[in-house]
Amino acid sequence: MWVTKEVVQEQGQQEQSSSNTTLFHVLDPRVFKRQLLDNLCGLATRVRMLAKSPAGAKLLQDLALNRRAMLYFTQPSTRTFLSFNNACHILGIRTSEIRDRSISSEVKGESFEDAIRTFSSYVDVIIMRSQEPGRAAQAARIMDSIERPVPIIDAGSGSEQHPTQALLDIYTLDRSFSQRGGIDGKVIGMMGDLRRGRTVRSLCYLMRSYTNVRLIFIAPKNFSMRDDVKTHLNEQEIAFVETDCLSEVLPELDALYVTRMQSEWDQEGESNDIDLSQYTVGKKQLAMLKPNGIIMHPLPRGPEIDPIVDADPRAMYWRQERNGMWMRVAILLKLLQLEESVS
Amino acid sequence: MWVTKEVVQEQGQQEQSSSNTTLFHVLDPRVFKRQLLDNLCGLATRVRMLAKSPAGAKLLQDLALNRRAMLYFTQPSTRTFLSFNNACHILGIRTSEIRDRSISSEVKGESFEDAIRTFSSYVDVIIMRSQEPGRAAQAARIMDSIERPVPIIDAGSGSEQHPTQALLDIYTLDRSFSQRGGIDGKVIGMMGDLRRGRTVRSLCYLMRSYTNVRLIFIAPKNFSMRDDVKTHLNEQEIAFVETDCLSEVLPELDALYVTRMQSEWDQEGESNDIDLSQYTVGKKQLAMLKPNGIIMHPLPRGPEIDPIVDADPRAMYWRQERNGMWMRVAILLKLLQLEESVS
Amino acid sequence: MWVTKEVVQEQGQQEQSSSNTTLFHVLDPRVFKRQLLDNLCGLATRVRMLAKSPAGAKLLQDLALNRRAMLYFTQPSTRTFLSFNNACHILGIRTSEIRDRSISSEVKGESFEDAIRTFSSYVDVIIMRSQEPGRAAQAARIMDSIERPVPIIDAGSGSEQHPTQALLDIYTLDRSFSQRGGIDGKVIGMMGDLRRGRTVRSLCYLMRSYTNVRLIFIAPKNFSMRDDVKTHLNEQEIAFVETDCLSEVLPELDALYVTRMQSEWDQEGESNDIDLSQYTVGKKQLAMLKPNGIIMHPLPRGPEIDPIVDADPRAMYWRQERNGMWMRVAILLKLLQLEESVS
Repeated sequence: MWVTKEVVQEQGQQEQSSSNTTLFHVLDPRVFKRQLLDNLCGLATRVRMLAKSPAGAKLLQDLALNRRAMLYFTQPSTRTFLSFNNACHILGIRTSEIRDRSISSEVKGESFEDAIRTFSSYVDVIIMRSQEPGRAAQAARIMDSIERPVPIIDAGSGSEQHPTQALLDIYTLDRSFSQRGGIDGKVIGMMGDLRRGRTVRSLCYLMRSYTNVRLIFIAPKNFSMRDDVKTHLNEQEIAFVETDCLSEVLPELDALYVTRMQSEWDQEGESNDIDLSQYTVGKKQLAMLKPNGIIMHPLPRGPEIDPIVDADPRAMYWRQERNGMWMRVAILLKLLQLEESVS
Repeated sequence: MWVTKEVVQEQGQQEQSSSNTTLFHVLDPRVFKRQLLDNLCGLATRVRMLAKSPAGAKLLQDLALNRRAMLYFTQPSTRTFLSFNNACHILGIRTSEIRDRSISSEVKGESFEDAIRTFSSYVDVIIMRSQEPGRAAQAARIMDSIERPVPIIDAGSGSEQHPTQALLDIYTLDRSFSQRGGIDGKVIGMMGDLRRGRTVRSLCYLMRSYTNVRLIFIAPKNFSMRDDVKTHLNEQEIAFVETDCLSEVLPELDALYVTRMQSEWDQEGESNDIDLSQYTVGKKQLAMLKPNGIIMHPLPRGPEIDPIVDADPRAMYWRQERNGMWMRVAILLKLLQLEESVS
Repeated sequence: MWVTKEVVQEQGQQEQSSSNTTLFHVLDPRVFKRQLLDNLCGLATRVRMLAKSPAGAKLLQDLALNRRAMLYFTQPSTRTFLSFNNACHILGIRTSEIRDRSISSEVKGESFEDAIRTFSSYVDVIIMRSQEPGRAAQAARIMDSIERPVPIIDAGSGSEQHPTQALLDIYTLDRSFSQRGGIDGKVIGMMGDLRRGRTVRSLCYLMRSYTNVRLIFIAPKNFSMRDDVKTHLNEQEIAFVETDCLSEVLPELDALYVTRMQSEWDQEGESNDIDLSQYTVGKKQLAMLKPNGIIMHPLPRGPEIDPIVDADPRAMYWRQERNGMWMRVAILLKLLQLEESVS
């Protein structure tokens, strides 16, 4: 995830170093390590606990009061925008936003390179989301070539990457299984439009950091997981099976990660042909799920999770959403080299 | 106003409890009590006084520095938006805004329920304004059904309700008559498009908290006050008369509340047929107004108040506008249970 | 620059008064004095130095934590918006923004006068940018006529004025020549679309504060500097020459201020007929520039500066851009009468 300028320090003999990796940019989720994931999850939990008390919230608020962030979101997004904006606010970071390219100076013909460099002139970190794949990586390369670079956080680029979503998903699994030995050894089902859903794709890549995880892909034939991910899983010797029938596998799942039909990527309405009722969670499915199994969803949801499920204690998606904010606070703390302040 | 989750505590024997009512949501202005109105007016004044000194402003600034608000304004609004945004800023509250539905995740088909719940995941209070009536009440019901609810403030829903405007109007009357026994016993004229103006409608409903108030409705025949309000006034035994002639009644008014033609609600240009000059305040009308009478207007204004009136000390609308910010600070303090901090 | 409400205090016998001029509005750049320019440049440098340390950044952050600014930008702008927004944030100032007139109450027919007065009700300073010339001056006149005025900062009005750009350009020249006796006596080239570029026009007017400056205008015939500026220079006895050939004059320049073709003001595509390659800086031009000469540009740039130039230590435009933020912090400190706090 932290490709460029990443420095991995070998852990010394000190007992309680809360951190042993420094980050610069947050880009490709595939390049990551277990240590860093555990470190970020721990940091997110510390921050979440601190924020519960007024004194702790005040402490967090003071940490980065003199830092400034830029949210450059040229692709529509409510959830990720608000999650990052409020993560900044929790740390006292002041934010500037561009959410509509038509009001930007790109209308005067400025190059992307110059626009990003301009943003970096004014702030300490750039959080960006774009329609086009690779934009955040391109911005990171620009930063790496100048004298006064600032970190780039990819908040979603095209249909391929959404690294901070992958991290918050890991955090949600980690929290949910904290009394049961963590993520290692768990059976995780992923259901829905696996072919086009970037969140499940990223999550698969992160699985190699955990031992004995078994994945079950549940999808209509035409929307099954793509070969690139399956090849990766085979190489990493991560067990997975595929099915188009939820009820067959539901009883063995520790976690069911549900996704919506990504019909915005349809070429000719192909998602309309699917009998979605087969890939839906409702009362009947709840009855078949383990008592300590959990249901996740990256949200927004369509009809694939009946709102009746919300009241079930195993429904984890609203907490997952809020975990996103805490994980983003953790990421910002790490990028701004402030994590020692909360250890 | 504070329907859901309202808890009215019976006032004990303590002498100086600055508060005896807790609020959760701010919705229907019709359900309110004199005690709460007086409480909020007092709170607004304390905050206004504090803000005059740098030390007081700093105290206010620190009160809610670790709180976060969401301004969800899908209906165009400058005044109410800025008033709330700056009220938040006075208390140190950090704000996130959505002011254009097209950039929100509703474009991905998310339900209103899920969108509101998502907002509530990230912030401590949601301030919302919408074109459709009842949206804020609906959001409040959603909050009341979940585990971690946050307060909803209705900043205007459709053509019916605008509760915080009604409160700031009360505050302006209360301040203006503070040396003359308060609102009780005053003669209040309301002029203009009474049929469709939501501010005068709300204000009428609040009048039952005051004794011996007399109302005079001054409007063209087709734009007179609607029957629902008049029925309410009759039930509450609040005296009112109706006229279409300002000069007849102007000399007896303690306050003249002027409103603009709400031509945006016209079906077929009916407001064009009115001789607006009959419902206008200028030099001539100023001469007929009591020396201590006041002129109010919710703003924005059209031709119904000549700018020449602005310089007259009885013109209260600019102060009324600023009162709106202080009243909103008072409301936020109360919702966040911080009012004791400024007593 | 600080026309209205300007109070120039005669300098007393005190030794280290960091300031001797108070400002109210920031409007016309033509009305200014050397003392004030030096004062602002000094202030910008003190702020810039302070911000380098966490303690200094915290000090700045606390200075105006209880102040509020409004950014009213009805003309698209990224750079100036971000520069001002972050300048506010450096001082702790809370910001509200309107960047799209369609969401404002002007859709309800409110007058410009009432809109500006409304903004002033809520904040301590209004920073505005508009398409129409003279709007900021008009806003300042409104403020001067009311009881509770707030300062207006012109962040660009039409094609004529951009006073804070002129100030940041002066600051950049002043910094760049700080080891060489300052701006006095330097040879400054201005190149490109001089007829329509407001930045070079403003800069010319500021030159009368410096002694023995020589200006060289380098432009295609149809885009040469307009007569009003040249008349002013003659009146002030500021030496200038005109040429359409860069290479002839490049070796004698201490600074080359490059500007882009302002093709957005074209009547019938007249800028297409120009051979822009003659007015471009690249490797070849760098070779001809003095070792301590500098290259400036207000940005955004088009093809007139090859990106290869960025790496040359004489390329000053990225620093110039960042200088803009510091100069705006200095201006805000001065308007809010806080400059003594950093002296």
